Amino acid sequence: MIVKHGMNYLSALNSARNHKLAPPLAVLRRQQFLIRVLGVRGENIMQESKFEADADNIMRAITPVFDPNRHKGQAGKVAVIGGCREYTGAPYFAAISALKIGADLSHVFCTKDAAPVIKSYSPELIVHPVLEESYSVGDRDKDHISRRVVAEVDKWMERFDCLVVGPGLGRDPFLLCIGMAVRKLCRSMQMVWSSHENNLFAVLLWNTVASYDCVSEIIKQARQANVPIIIDGDGLFLITDNLGLVSGYPLAILTPNVNEYKRLVQKVLNCEVNDQDAHGQLLSLAKQIGGVTILRKGMSDLISDGEIVLPTYEKYGMMPEIFLRITSVNVCGASIKSVSNYGSPRRCGGQGDILSGSVAVFLSWARQLILANEGNLIISPTNPTMLGCIAGSALLRKAASLAFEDRKRSTLTTDIIECLGRSLEDICPAC
Amino acid sequence: MIVKHGMNYLSALNSARNHKLAPPLAVLRRQQFLIRVLGVRGENIMQESKFEADADNIMRAITPVFDPNRHKGQAGKVAVIGGCREYTGAPYFAAISALKIGADLSHVFCTKDAAPVIKSYSPELIVHPVLEESYSVGDRDKDHISRRVVAEVDKWMERFDCLVVGPGLGRDPFLLCIGMAVRKLCRSMQMVWSSHENNLFAVLLWNTVASYDCVSEIIKQARQANVPIIIDGDGLFLITDNLGLVSGYPLAILTPNVNEYKRLVQKVLNCEVNDQDAHGQLLSLAKQIGGVTILRKGMSDLISDGEIVLPTYEKYGMMPEIFLRITSVNVCGASIKSVSNYGSPRRCGGQGDILSGSVAVFLSWARQLILANEGNLIISPTNPTMLGCIAGSALLRKAASLAFEDRKRSTLTTDIIECLGRSLEDICPAC
Repeated sequence: MIVKHGMNYLSALNSARNHKLAPPLAVLRRQQFLIRVLGVRGENIMQESKFEADADNIMRAITPVFDPNRHKGQAGKVAVIGGCREYTGAPYFAAISALKIGADLSHVFCTKDAAPVIKSYSPELIVHPVLEESYSVGDRDKDHISRRVVAEVDKWMERFDCLVVGPGLGRDPFLLCIGMAVRKLCRSMQMVWSSHENNLFAVLLWNTVASYDCVSEIIKQARQANVPIIIDGDGLFLITDNLGLVSGYPLAILTPNVNEYKRLVQKVLNCEVNDQDAHGQLLSLAKQIGGVTILRKGMSDLISDGEIVLPTYEKYGMMPEIFLRITSVNVCGASIKSVSNYGSPRRCGGQGDILSGSVAVFLSWARQLILANEGNLIISPTNPTMLGCIAGSALLRKAASLAFEDRKRSTLTTDIIECLGRSLEDICPAC
Repeated sequence: MIVKHGMNYLSALNSARNHKLAPPLAVLRRQQFLIRVLGVRGENIMQESKFEADADNIMRAITPVFDPNRHKGQAGKVAVIGGCREYTGAPYFAAISALKIGADLSHVFCTKDAAPVIKSYSPELIVHPVLEESYSVGDRDKDHISRRVVAEVDKWMERFDCLVVGPGLGRDPFLLCIGMAVRKLCRSMQMVWSSHENNLFAVLLWNTVASYDCVSEIIKQARQANVPIIIDGDGLFLITDNLGLVSGYPLAILTPNVNEYKRLVQKVLNCEVNDQDAHGQLLSLAKQIGGVTILRKGMSDLISDGEIVLPTYEKYGMMPEIFLRITSVNVCGASIKSVSNYGSPRRCGGQGDILSGSVAVFLSWARQLILANEGNLIISPTNPTMLGCIAGSALLRKAASLAFEDRKRSTLTTDIIECLGRSLEDICPAC
């Protein structure tokens, strides 16, 4: 399972190199570029601070070269868990962004009510109407339905290169707010439960939270299958109270915005957000959650896997060279004009969903590349989640910038999505 | 039934020649072109290797000339059997592609849940919400509902020029996985059945598989009515375990991708795919299934009806002249830039659906042409299914190439569909 399409990518590279019709120079150039830019372990260990990597170069390095020998699915199969009665745009944005960047297949697992709407946005998506909301399920059926939902997602799990959990998942008050309170109550009543398995109150409590547990179970199964998981939006609301779901899983990425980050810090570090030591605090947070990768969204995106902080930050002088370059790409400073060509001052809803979809694709590609080159070529940052976050963040900012240039105040998320292809093409031409 | 619009096409040609509004020179030129390019049996038998035909010429030859005397439906009426709760994009892609190429009417027969979504993609399609999935039908109703579904499709059957079975048909596990096992069990229990017609277990088993049998029954009825059938996607999953449905039917086309082809080879030839002898193996496979036409999708599309293999292949030197030309059109070589203007390296899902819709239209046109000219003009390859496959494959590749030129990595199936019209116009101007 771990290898997935890794070897395919390698063989694609090799076959492209050997094939009489292939562009061997392009492939060779890409490989040499990888070695030069990202460093090779072994004889050529390079100091981190000497890396010349920047976000555009990382994007170029991990984006696969086109190869006509490849078949459907090898450029990425992504799934989004989200979409409910209220929110249908968010999972669509995430899933369609993945396709527009270059994934071959994009699935959405959403509630039955949300499915026809999400399908109608685009025939390109494969939408599974499998999730249930509390209003549509009787208390007695919850456990049974929860198992069915989890099984329906699980039968697809091995096919996915990345799972995005959260866009438009919703916070069904019965399931989430009450559910969370009940969950706490459940914990304190654990001893009572065990001795009263058939206790009506206990069964009622359990059923109350069972349905929301669908998503927890899906996360557990993805983890078991070594499928990378990006937790966004309402998924973060879930995991903040259930850190064990992702804790210690190196293929997990959390993408909190300001408020979601605040909740995480309060919950995990038991303190308030400290912007004076943003890097140190992010590093501690990622470490504390067992080395998951956190992409803290904001004016500047900060990324850490508990080992390293790759910031986009305005205080260039404080950063080593590797940070400088990435910084210079990702920064959307207070003064848009003077700081960067990238990014947009528009804060229309949905950009976070583009980001999660984009990170999913780049993470899949980075993982393929790393797995395919195991033993020969080890890139650094060695963590595909870090590479995915850097590339996803940079691409979104470039696309947002292009869209804003054209649409100004009326820039919407769909306008930004339309600019994803051109943005990637500018950085990393297809051929 | 067999003649269908064949005579209309002939009379259209004649009337076009005589009609004051028609372009008689164009029609004459087209006819002379047909005689010259595709060969006339009798006095002017031409060697196959001397044919100057290539895919573009075949497309020009079988695409009907516009004639103001023709009425709605004469340019093709295509139906797609597919579309379920999960998949709505695939049948839409196939059906809308048929219209964009020039068919007059395009129907979709799908499940009730899928219909409103497919309708919402385009008001151009006629969408029949007649199929049922196992979750919506009680065990006791399955037999009755199955008969009703088959009858609903059958009443339309005689109107169609081609049926595409499979895009987005789905693999309802209850109907397919269990159904297949039960089907085998049924066979072994045949003797028991006959003596226990009212045996509850037997009835239960039969009902379990009855609903999936809808599609088998639809295929049988299409065959009985001499309607050409293209089997794609999940339809191939069905027929691989029920080869009798298509075996020996010369108007059947199978369009397997890598995995579907692998399953077919294992099932029919009882061996693994042999790429060293790809032509020989395809020829054997098509022969073994009684002369159906197989379009093996891949980097190069390989087509055979058990008599001839028309490849798109990079080893030009090994091919006689007729293959050379077709090859040069269809190859999407390893180096996209240097080998061909055609094809795209993008492998986004849905391109197979465009292909099945395209082949449906070209097959209908080729059949009209052949039937209309019976006794006078015999074209070669004489099999309309072969002509349909060649033209469909070549057009998709051209459209994909145009779309990729414009959209690069963000090319999606809808972008390719938008290029179908321009691609056909480039090859075969409407007037």
